[in-house]
Amino acid sequence: MDGDRQGSAERPRTPFSRRHLLLGGAAAGLGASALVGADLLAGRGEPPAPAPSPAPAPEEPDGGETVPFHGPHQAGVETPPQAHANFVAFDLAADVDRERTRRLLTLLTDDVAKLSQGDAALADSEPELAYVPARLTVTFGFGPGLVERVAPDAAPSWLRPLPEFAVDRLRDEWSDGDLLLQVCADDPLTVAHATRMLTKDVRAFGAVRWVQAGFRRARGSEAAGTTMRNLMGQVDGTVNTAPGTDDFERIVWDGGGNPDWLRGGTSLVIRRIAMDLDKWDRLDRSGREESVGRRLADGAPLTGSREHDEPDFDAVTPLGFPVIAEFAHIRRARTDDPAERIFRRAYNYDLPVTGSEGQDAGLVFASFQADVDRQFVPIQKRLDELDLLNEWISPIGSAVFAIPPGCEEGGFVGETLFDA
Amino acid sequence: MDGDRQGSAERPRTPFSRRHLLLGGAAAGLGASALVGADLLAGRGEPPAPAPSPAPAPEEPDGGETVPFHGPHQAGVETPPQAHANFVAFDLAADVDRERTRRLLTLLTDDVAKLSQGDAALADSEPELAYVPARLTVTFGFGPGLVERVAPDAAPSWLRPLPEFAVDRLRDEWSDGDLLLQVCADDPLTVAHATRMLTKDVRAFGAVRWVQAGFRRARGSEAAGTTMRNLMGQVDGTVNTAPGTDDFERIVWDGGGNPDWLRGGTSLVIRRIAMDLDKWDRLDRSGREESVGRRLADGAPLTGSREHDEPDFDAVTPLGFPVIAEFAHIRRARTDDPAERIFRRAYNYDLPVTGSEGQDAGLVFASFQADVDRQFVPIQKRLDELDLLNEWISPIGSAVFAIPPGCEEGGFVGETLFDA
Ligand code: HEM
Ligand code: HEM
Repeated sequence: MDGDRQGSAERPRTPFSRRHLLLGGAAAGLGASALVGADLLAGRGEPPAPAPSPAPAPEEPDGGETVPFHGPHQAGVETPPQAHANFVAFDLAADVDRERTRRLLTLLTDDVAKLSQGDAALADSEPELAYVPARLTVTFGFGPGLVERVAPDAAPSWLRPLPEFAVDRLRDEWSDGDLLLQVCADDPLTVAHATRMLTKDVRAFGAVRWVQAGFRRARGSEAAGTTMRNLMGQVDGTVNTAPGTDDFERIVWDGGGNPDWLRGGTSLVIRRIAMDLDKWDRLDRSGREESVGRRLADGAPLTGSREHDEPDFDAVTPLGFPVIAEFAHIRRARTDDPAERIFRRAYNYDLPVTGSEGQDAGLVFASFQADVDRQFVPIQKRLDELDLLNEWISPIGSAVFAIPPGCEEGGFVGETLFDA
Repeated sequence: MDGDRQGSAERPRTPFSRRHLLLGGAAAGLGASALVGADLLAGRGEPPAPAPSPAPAPEEPDGGETVPFHGPHQAGVETPPQAHANFVAFDLAADVDRERTRRLLTLLTDDVAKLSQGDAALADSEPELAYVPARLTVTFGFGPGLVERVAPDAAPSWLRPLPEFAVDRLRDEWSDGDLLLQVCADDPLTVAHATRMLTKDVRAFGAVRWVQAGFRRARGSEAAGTTMRNLMGQVDGTVNTAPGTDDFERIVWDGGGNPDWLRGGTSLVIRRIAMDLDKWDRLDRSGREESVGRRLADGAPLTGSREHDEPDFDAVTPLGFPVIAEFAHIRRARTDDPAERIFRRAYNYDLPVTGSEGQDAGLVFASFQADVDRQFVPIQKRLDELDLLNEWISPIGSAVFAIPPGCEEGGFVGETLFDA
């Protein structure tokens, strides 16, 4: 099963290195001799690498952009959301004990460190696909099963399936898991390649439990910082804590409330939420706006005129009804309790459907928070009790993961759990 | 079933018009009064539209780019391939006769004309999702079943399933169909929205038979004009006729060899070709390069040093063997007969797979040619007989469509078939 890895020593270095790719025209300017030199350095006797063919380049390609991998926090949380994501959950095999888990995490860390910087993975079978990192981040999450194998008493109390909610229509095939890899990049081929390489790493240790593919607008489609829209057409993500603020630090990164090994880490709740878009389409526009409490056109609250205006929950219509309905999603999701806040980083999903009705679309809701029970559960409880949106959405998958801190060079993601 | 359409008159115009979106900062500079004016013009009494929130914009957003819809040829053939595609095939219901087919095509033409220019479809249920066209093109293809209903004797002789090939492992669920919509754009949300709106148009007339979602590198990831890579890691599309050349005109657009209604049209062959990537990964690098006859690093022929070097099929190794193997893909795919050429416009596919083995990935091979039997079939026949690549690929779906010419404003795609 480790066959791929054995072949790695034989893999020739390719002359079409990332450096070469990124230098582009510049390298071509150096002439063939410089490239021959690079080839010889790489120890292969093949003809010199070609200069990239002169292509009309209206703008600088941005596929070379990278997000640092090492650091106190894992990447892929604060990172401005990339256009594409694969959330991949694995079940570990029964014989994967503490030591084999360490081996797996070391292997994955190595490969993610390389891939995220635009270099081929250790046993990369398609290395050329690795040279366009496109802001690739891979975020590791640990389910209860993984923590149990490594340090049985180290699980934070919230690391378990969420309590049952009345709205839930959960399916096993979209829920739970021992290990999660959240693979995000602005390029779909980059996501496909990284997912495949990492999935192959895991093969000898376990099996894929589920994969949830998600997307947002393409990079560059809209001005940077534009709030995403979901498939109901809503502006989704307006009121959200912003990376770089004290607020974010407090809401997202563990500051000591969890077992020590999670210092600098956080938690991730993933809810696969199906949208009944046909039913939604039968509702008129004002009904849709009322269900959320915001306008579809621009995401402004019904009491305001710009997306980021503060909603006025006390405003009433001439007839005395609240402008933002009692059961509107934003009223129910909000609280004055500063403890009950989360950082949302969701993606749309849309799977092909055959036949003459329906769709299989919705939101891969993903939220990060230092403590699931204290921050996420109370919000979900309120939404479960009453939320106009519930008429059109239903959670069909649910999973909770501990997100360990980042690691420094030479370390691996999850190492703190081994000292717990 | 036509309920959506009935509601369309009520749909308020939104202030967040495409124009507004595209003007972006410029509109903001005009101040709120200009925007209020626009609002009043649109005839609604709501508060003025907000200026876009000031977002860090490192570069001009490109989601506003459009491809013209009207013209002698349909868009989506000559169009430089967008990053994302949905190929959607429909079966028409038994009661869809000539007149209802006309109605369907008129409806679809209307909506595609709008969506491709960044405007909402007629009964658009999520109009805001339409305002980022991102080079959206929708190309209509007609299967034998549709042509039969409209003009029973008008089908070109090649409009039928391809002959059987020994390599075929075809599945019904990925083959054939009465009507095809090839939906391409650089933005995945645009593709999802357009697919849904058009699929809803078809609902009263038939059912979705299959959907094949495909991707290439994101727009902007690499320099414009970079040849795509497939999931085997190969540079795929090097030797291909180029839009704008006489060659392309002759190879792609019907110039009189087909029934008159296809003048300015072409044909599309779609083959869903699965790749056994695990098996491919077990082959060493030189074996992989030999199977195609080109290098993985840069796509150069094994006898050359740059991607676009002409392969030397006569070159031999010191031991007297051909450098480009007898059964290499590029040798078998090529012919001196200028009639046997095609224009390839393929996409990668990669569906999630659970478990501990395998993948569901490959190529949505798509080629345009004026005559399927004369141009495509001889190539496929040679590849079927002998092609080293066959060891790792197998066609699991196959469909042939007639691509009618484009239409002018006021017309509809397929109108020439009604005069046939
Ligand atoms: C498919 C399911 C969902 C949809 C379509 C949806 C949609 C929206 C929309 C349109 C907004 C207003 C814009 C914004 O501030 O982002 C919003 C706000 C919010 N949503 Fe959701 N949401 C969904 C599920 C959830 C879930 C599961 C939670 C947490 C349990 C949640 C928590 C929130 C919060 C905290 C806000 C901000 C409220 C505020 O303080 O203004 N949402 N959502
Ligand atoms: C998964 C299936 C396939 C893969 C991975 C594949 C891959 C490739 C590659 C790597 C090349 C060389 C670079 C280039 O010129 O594009 C190539 C060339 C070519 N392929 Fe394929 N191909 C596949 C299927 C097909 C099919 C089904 C046809 C047509 C029946 C076809 C026709 C051609 C042609 C005409 C060329 C150019 C040959 C020349 O004149 O140099 N390919 N293909």
